[in-house]
Order: sequence, then structure tokens, then C-alpha cells
Amino acid sequence: MSGKAERKSPLAPPDFPELPAIKGLGMAAGDAAIKHAGRNDLAIWTVDSGTSAAGLFTRSMLPAAPVTVTKEHIQAAPPRALLVNSANANAFTGLQGLADCRTIARATAEALGCKPEQVLMASTGVIGEPLPVRQIMDRIPELPKKIRPAAWQDAAEAIMTTDTFAKGAHAHAVIDGQPVTLCGVAKGSGMIAPNMATMLAFCFTDARIPGVQLHEMLLASADRTFNAITVDSDTSTSDMLLLFATGKAGHAPPGSVDDPRFEGFRAALDELLKDLAIQIVRDGEGASKLIETRISGAESDASARKIAESVANSPLVKTAIAGGDANWGRIIMALGKSGENVQAEHLLIRIGGELVASGGQRAENYDESRITRHLEGDEILIEAELQIGSGAFTIWTCDLTHGYISINADYRS
Amino acid sequence: MSGKAERKSPLAPPDFPELPAIKGLGMAAGDAAIKHAGRNDLAIWTVDSGTSAAGLFTRSMLPAAPVTVTKEHIQAAPPRALLVNSANANAFTGLQGLADCRTIARATAEALGCKPEQVLMASTGVIGEPLPVRQIMDRIPELPKKIRPAAWQDAAEAIMTTDTFAKGAHAHAVIDGQPVTLCGVAKGSGMIAPNMATMLAFCFTDARIPGVQLHEMLLASADRTFNAITVDSDTSTSDMLLLFATGKAGHAPPGSVDDPRFEGFRAALDELLKDLAIQIVRDGEGASKLIETRISGAESDASARKIAESVANSPLVKTAIAGGDANWGRIIMALGKSGENVQAEHLLIRIGGELVASGGQRAENYDESRITRHLEGDEILIEAELQIGSGAFTIWTCDLTHGYISINADYRS
Repeated sequence: MSGKAERKSPLAPPDFPELPAIKGLGMAAGDAAIKHAGRNDLAIWTVDSGTSAAGLFTRSMLPAAPVTVTKEHIQAAPPRALLVNSANANAFTGLQGLADCRTIARATAEALGCKPEQVLMASTGVIGEPLPVRQIMDRIPELPKKIRPAAWQDAAEAIMTTDTFAKGAHAHAVIDGQPVTLCGVAKGSGMIAPNMATMLAFCFTDARIPGVQLHEMLLASADRTFNAITVDSDTSTSDMLLLFATGKAGHAPPGSVDDPRFEGFRAALDELLKDLAIQIVRDGEGASKLIETRISGAESDASARKIAESVANSPLVKTAIAGGDANWGRIIMALGKSGENVQAEHLLIRIGGELVASGGQRAENYDESRITRHLEGDEILIEAELQIGSGAFTIWTCDLTHGYISINADYRS
Repeated sequence: MSGKAERKSPLAPPDFPELPAIKGLGMAAGDAAIKHAGRNDLAIWTVDSGTSAAGLFTRSMLPAAPVTVTKEHIQAAPPRALLVNSANANAFTGLQGLADCRTIARATAEALGCKPEQVLMASTGVIGEPLPVRQIMDRIPELPKKIRPAAWQDAAEAIMTTDTFAKGAHAHAVIDGQPVTLCGVAKGSGMIAPNMATMLAFCFTDARIPGVQLHEMLLASADRTFNAITVDSDTSTSDMLLLFATGKAGHAPPGSVDDPRFEGFRAALDELLKDLAIQIVRDGEGASKLIETRISGAESDASARKIAESVANSPLVKTAIAGGDANWGRIIMALGKSGENVQAEHLLIRIGGELVASGGQRAENYDESRITRHLEGDEILIEAELQIGSGAFTIWTCDLTHGYISINADYRS
């Protein structure tokens, strides 16, 4: 825990937003002394019975213990609580790591009066170090008494590692004339030495949506939000996105996933997840610029996604933008290396809306000074129009700066 | 052309090696004033008639003009010359770029008394800028007079962009009792602002091997050498690896690709390409450490390659090594994100030969100080033994340092 990342990201929003309470939901933070003294490292959310939940988890082949256990629990029983610790990932901790999760789930269930399978868990922090179970267990009995309806900022801060700001967002919809609220918190691409970035996001709504449909909606929304951001192309052992629906809003449940009554809800969920996802990019390690890469006219959406990933993950593109260098040759390189169908003669490339390439060569009226001016800002737009088909995809990333190296290389464990 | 990369890589060999002449081959360098004044930017190699050639080319969907033309020429006729310019890639230059290549091929053919299709070409440097054809054309008539049998260093220096040292290597074999020589030069992952790294390698031998077999041998050798190195996972529009065989060594040609008489030759080719490939990594932008990642016991060689790539391309692994941080959790992360079959309980991870993880958790006698000592050196060895199958693959890369960011971000075009 180096303290290197204490300086707030220049791309941070001014303040943590005011998030409303959600019926059937409470939360609290606690200090198990895993992090620096005086900084909370435990967060709990409790939900009334009748709540459904859906989750998306890291695709890592070596997932952390709480990922394995939470996947199991979310299938086994309707949830009553989510317990999260930061500063230790309980990852690559073998059978002991799994046993530690079960111990904590039992204690939490006991404190709340529910079954252990009703407790979901997440951890983020150091990999390969045994979880300090005793420290966490000592704090569990007191957590239920501390629960309040909207302690969002406390909870968001407790799950931070070296995030430079706490991340929260909310959105609203109307279903059957009933107002519905969605709130969420996230932690992202800060590092906790000696460790990796982990993406955690926990979202809550008072909408009434059974688990199966909730999962489908979450999957669809995540596809173009949380699955459309990248900081350094690395994937944590611990990534987790959970959505809880307490069902208190007083409308009828959806008839199907694409029930038109839930159109507003689906849009609000998109909005919530996009807001949180972009906040994670804004806090990317060393980030000084937010980069939006829009690919259109590709053979398919899947092809557009691969091309967008190729650009957004290219260290040469990301360093050029960090340096404010109108180096569009690197975009050509990244488009070309995608392996996807890209045809030089049809390709249009724009930076900040200015055409830089068309007809297989530099655009006729190319004016580097206009591009350079755009690159001086902190929100950069790269567009490639392939003019082959109608596939489109947008990815958000940040630039690659000395800050990234400092955070990840200069610290010695 | 920033001059930022002038300081020699700390991983550079002390001197350019003494490379012998090869019967039937000559070479020269020239100055077309595309680079800094006084630095050569043209190289020519001429080969006697009877020479065969094989090439491997960038997989970029947007290849540079000389890639397209050289692929065409190498199929059309036996080669007589290779003309290379640095400082302009002739990439994304549309129909004009192709026309420029043909103009240069015609002029070179005229100067040498051969057909235009017998001239192969390569370019490396700025993307999207028209090639200064006139400057190159002006130098072509005088090149034949300058040709000498072993001007290897001159030629190697002429193809450099921001490489910090010229790269050359040689190897030897015996075929049917006849000594056979192999020599090669390469340029690599230096940047020429405002542009990308390009990998060019040109190898020559006096062995007698028809084009078809030569191509197969080159492909096999490149697979575990040039295709087993990575600096930043980006792929240039201009990458090219050529092998010429003048056939002067006086042995009979191979009966087939796997003719046992050519076993020594194939081994020597492996050696030559590995030597050049690792020199490119040693000159990786900002490199302070050479990293060898050995994966063994994987489901298949292909699986081992994907896992090795996941580790070698991970910015978090590369920055940890740059910082001398014994952060093996990042190796776990990189193995896990590969998507390949990796089983925690069977996995053995070693750094510098020291066991750090086994049985799905930190190794019992893990001693960080021993790892830290290894990381203080400049040749780092990461091994992951999966104990699943017999697939194996080794990749070489370099660390990710402030130097990389400085070279690629700090310069403004």
C-alpha cells in the first residue's frame, strides 16, 4: 500500500454524487485493519427477503475464492447480504481461501439471521496472501447495528484500493407508473501494491425482476458498458459485477426479458453501468485523458469490437495521445493488426471529428494543428468508419503515461 | 526524428559482430537524405543469378506498399536485389505508394541489368507521408559501384530508425561436407517519430535450397524465434523477414524440407534467427531487462504459446519486473486471463529458478528476498509448469519502463 496514488485523478468528477436510499436495502462500512489504519476496508449491504440477484464474474481461469463461492451462493438461494473486503483479494490461496470464505459467510449469516448461502462475498487487494480472517470475523457482529439506508459514500470508500476517488452513480426509470431507482458503486483500476487492478461494481434497484430476467438484462447492459472499457488489457482474478433487485417498487414483474414495460428500466440500467464504467476509466492508473474509440461500418458488431479493442489496447496509440501527438499512423497500425476486415480504400479516420485519412491515404485537407488542438483536451474521440457493413462498437480507455509506470513499477513491495 | 533514443540500450551487445562474406552476395549503403543529415538511409543487397528467396510478411490488414510489391515480386521471379530505405514506411500512401515502389524497382533493375520483378523492397519509418521518391531515385545509379562483399555494419546501420544499436548475427553449418554460412541483419523496436516500431530482418546464406523448401524452413524457424518475441504487442504495417540462398556452397539441394542432410542447416537457421530476434528485444523501447517466459506442461504447444503471450504482453507483469518487484500475483493474473486450461492446484511457478507458487497457493518456503535478488539482474526468467500435458513454448520480451513512455509519448511531432 504505497500511497503513491493518493493524488486524485485529473479526470475525477468534482464530488461523490448524492445517492438516494433504495427500499429494502441497507449498508454499512467497517474497519478490519487490513488497509492503512483509519481507512475502512469492509462494506456490507443487506437486502430484505424477496430480493433477487444477478452476477457477472471474471473470466480468469484462476478466479479468487470469493468469486467461486459467490457464484455458488447466487445460484443456491435468494441473497440477504453482500460482504466485501478490500486490501486482500483472497486469490490463489488454495483450499484455505475457500474455507475462509465459508467461515465468513457463516458468521455473517449468524449475525443477520439468514443462511450462509444467502451471503455473497467479494475481495480485492493482494494476491496469494492468506486472508486475515480473524480481523474480519472480529468486525462482523457489530456490522448489522451500523446499517443505514444510504451510506453510499462510506461503502464506496471502503471498497477502494488505490482508486483515487470513490465511484457512485444513480439512474431512474418508471415502470407501470411507479418510479424505480437504481444506484451503484464501483472500484476500479487503482492498484494495491503488490497487486493488480480489480474491477468491482455493486448495483441495486427497488424494481421487481426475477433473477433469470435480471441476469439477462445485466448481461445485455454490461456488454456495451463494463465490457467496453479497458485500462491496460489485464484481467483481474476478482472482477465482479452484481445487481440486486429488492422488488419493493410495487409494479408487476416483467413478462419476459424484452417486456416493453421495462424499456425505461433497461435504458436506466445502461446509463448506470456506463456511468460507473467510465468513472473506472477516468481513474485508470496514471490516466490524464479519457479516450473514446468509435468503430462503425464494420462487417459485424463483433468485428467492430475487435477492431476497437485493437486500437484501445495499443500502447503506441495510448502513448501518442498521452503526448498530444497527432500520430494517426499508429491508428492505422492498430486497425491493421486487428486481423479484421479493414479496407484501406474505404476507411475514414477522424480525430476529434476532423478527417485525417480517407481513400487509403492522408486526407486531402489534413491540418495537423486542428488535431493537435483536440489532443490538448482531456476527452479524446477517435472514429474509424470502415464503410464495409453496419457493425459498430464503442470502447472507452485512458492514455498510457509515466503515471502508469510510476504506480506499477516504481513501488517495491 | 527526435533523437530521444540515441542512448544505447543497456542490454546491447558490446559491438557489432564481424560477419563474413557470402559467395554470390554483395551490399552497400547510401544516403538519400530522408534521415538526419549524414546518416545513411538506403541499403542494397545484390545476389547472383541462381539465388532463391523466401519471405514472411506482416499480418497487418493495412500493409505498406513495399510489402505488397515484394510479396508479388518474390513469387514472380528469382531475386537479384533487395533495396531498403529507412525513415519513411511508404505505408497508407494509397495508389501513389504502390506506383512509387514500381518506379524504384524499375530504376534499380536498370542500374543492375535485371528485371523489375527481381528487385525486392522494404521501407520503415513514418506512416502516411508520401515517399520522397526523387531523393531515392537520385542515389540508385551510384549504388552498384559501391557494392562490397561484407559491408554488413554499413547496411545494418542504414536500416536503423531509432534502434539504439545495429543488429547482425551469423551461424554456420555443414552440408554434405561443405561449410555453409548464414548471416543476417535486423532492425527492431526503435521508434522513428512520429511512428511505430517495425521489425525488418534480412538473412543470407550460400546454401543451395529451392524457394519452396527455403520458405518451409524459414517458417519453421521463425515460429519459435521471430514469432516468439514481443515488445508491446503492437504489429507494424511493414514487418518483413527475408531469407536469400545464393546456392554457391557446392552441395546438392535438399530432397525434401526435412532432408536429414540439412539438419545442421536448420539448426543454424534457428540459431541465426533467435540471435537476431533477441537482439530486437534487447533494443525494445525503454528496455532495461530481457524477460524469458517459459511455459511447459500445457495442453498443447498452441495453448502454451497463448499463455506465454498473456504473460509476456501483460503491462502489469512488465512494470513489476521493471520495478524489481517480486509481484508473482501478476503472473497468476496473466496466466488466468489467458483463457487457456490452467489448473491452480497443478501449477508450479518459478522466478529465476525459485519456486514461488505450488498447490494453488504461495510455495511453502517462499523467500521473497531470493526473487528480489534475481530481479536485480538484467536477464529475468519466469517459468510456469502447468502439469497438464506436454505443450511448451518460450517467449522473449522486455520490461515496460518510463523509457517506453518517454520515447513514445514525450516526443511531439
